[in-house]
Amino acid sequence: MFTSDYLRELSDKAIASLGVSPEADKLFSPVRYILSIGGKRLRPVMCLMACNLFKDKIDEAVMPAVGIEVFHNFTLIHDDIIDKADLRRGSPTVHSKWGSDQALLSGDVMAFVAVECIGQAPEKVLAKTLRLFNRTAIEVCTGQQLDLDYEKKGLVSESEYLRMIELKTAVLIASSLKTGAIIGEASEKDQDLLYECGRCLGIAFQIQDDVLDTYGDTKMFGKKTGSDIVSNKKTYLLVRALEMAGGEKLRRLKKLLEPGNQNPEEKVLAVRAIYDELELRLHAENLAYDYFNRAFQALDQVTVNAERKNEIKQLAVNLIGRVK
Amino acid sequence: MFTSDYLRELSDKAIASLGVSPEADKLFSPVRYILSIGGKRLRPVMCLMACNLFKDKIDEAVMPAVGIEVFHNFTLIHDDIIDKADLRRGSPTVHSKWGSDQALLSGDVMAFVAVECIGQAPEKVLAKTLRLFNRTAIEVCTGQQLDLDYEKKGLVSESEYLRMIELKTAVLIASSLKTGAIIGEASEKDQDLLYECGRCLGIAFQIQDDVLDTYGDTKMFGKKTGSDIVSNKKTYLLVRALEMAGGEKLRRLKKLLEPGNQNPEEKVLAVRAIYDELELRLHAENLAYDYFNRAFQALDQVTVNAERKNEIKQLAVNLIGRVK
Repeated sequence: MFTSDYLRELSDKAIASLGVSPEADKLFSPVRYILSIGGKRLRPVMCLMACNLFKDKIDEAVMPAVGIEVFHNFTLIHDDIIDKADLRRGSPTVHSKWGSDQALLSGDVMAFVAVECIGQAPEKVLAKTLRLFNRTAIEVCTGQQLDLDYEKKGLVSESEYLRMIELKTAVLIASSLKTGAIIGEASEKDQDLLYECGRCLGIAFQIQDDVLDTYGDTKMFGKKTGSDIVSNKKTYLLVRALEMAGGEKLRRLKKLLEPGNQNPEEKVLAVRAIYDELELRLHAENLAYDYFNRAFQALDQVTVNAERKNEIKQLAVNLIGRVK
Repeated sequence: MFTSDYLRELSDKAIASLGVSPEADKLFSPVRYILSIGGKRLRPVMCLMACNLFKDKIDEAVMPAVGIEVFHNFTLIHDDIIDKADLRRGSPTVHSKWGSDQALLSGDVMAFVAVECIGQAPEKVLAKTLRLFNRTAIEVCTGQQLDLDYEKKGLVSESEYLRMIELKTAVLIASSLKTGAIIGEASEKDQDLLYECGRCLGIAFQIQDDVLDTYGDTKMFGKKTGSDIVSNKKTYLLVRALEMAGGEKLRRLKKLLEPGNQNPEEKVLAVRAIYDELELRLHAENLAYDYFNRAFQALDQVTVNAERKNEIKQLAVNLIGRVK
């Protein structure tokens, strides 16, 4: 079995080898940039690992795996325009470096570079691979739409929130694993189990991410904690707090969410105090672990030798275990 | 042979039947809108006509033809954001109706709806159809990049201009015809001839469009003439004028291009006077007819009965003949 380090290198090499048009260097500079400023290559690594569950030779999965990563980075460029974000992975965002128009157009070309990579799936599974990719891409856009809609909506239910992160984040992880399984010629059943595994992992991962933004260690987490609170982002914690808090507590929370000149650090502490009163960290971590366990249950049912699953399991543990 | 009217209706019906996600109506409203505010369905009609050259049954080409139209409309939404255009086909643009963020995201989802349609090509030609589509999509983005770059560049050569319109406009027309030929199971040679036919038609069409904006009849053309001159758009006429004019004439032209409070109607008349002195309308129309003839020569070589080509020829004549 290939290790995640090896598969990450393999993905990086394939990404570096992506052809670009010499005719419009300005178009492709932002593409090279976003693909070069880090990122864990989680999605291609998971795709390749899933393929490796069923096959020792995984070459045919490399370009489709890269296609998923290129697609993911395309969404980051466009999401950052909409969010007016200045930083991504600690570096300037594409639109803050090149302007929104360039970020829009370079993002667009990435969408088709992604499809071009997906199009290199073996011909006998091309139709299925492409169908899964398109359905997923449309779902990711739908998730981003719900995210934007929910930011403007007063009350968002827990189930609305979970569906939003499922679409925005989890289906692409699910699709990464399933794409690998399809190219690995797994049975339909195993393909679907891996999809479910990825879907649950993605949801667990996003809930953990919300917890980390509020409770994480800045040094370990790599970004300043509390930024979600400062920006009133509808995280799992805030969604649940607005659902659960009542009376004086709800009034206090709503007051804190009003735009104003309040000190950001005080705001973080005050909102976190309400979360603590509602025991929301515990709620959130329990829910994340619940999804995490469902992911493992699905993986356990995949009909290959348990030993072959160790790399995926280890990757999942590292991913979710960040909170510890 | 199917008539262009019939094929237009067929395309319209298939477009109306496109599935949308019930989960995010806001995401798909702009998609339905842009696809409903007219447009000649030129690209899907050409795709279906090309298929019909080789086959009497064209059902398998319908969804890929629609995919090309959806892609074309996706580029319009994003181009209009970049150009800050208020109107498209006489109706408000998507971003002026829903805002830039929504136009960005709804455009994105259209890109994948387009690929989803292309993905419905028959399995035995799917890889080839998809490869052509992706190459074309990347070229169209490259053409848009060159267009933006050239707007900021002082001097653009005739050949640079021609390459830009080839990428931005002509390759998608070329690709429409070739896609139909591929699905019609034409020989490689005939596929390439139809690509060349569409490429030349597309270039001819764009040059005519530039001429019409300056010299067309407002009523017939459907948009106010002179808008390109008012906005200093680098049309074929302006590019050639800047190349050909010298001395006093060049100074006069450059003065007219300076931003200022000059009366738009006077500007149009004064710039047009310089074009007339340089006989640029004649130059442009000759060049357009040259490309038009090359398109017909390529079509003539396609190895099907001459009679079967009548619909495509008539469509091309109607398209280019608008200037008369």
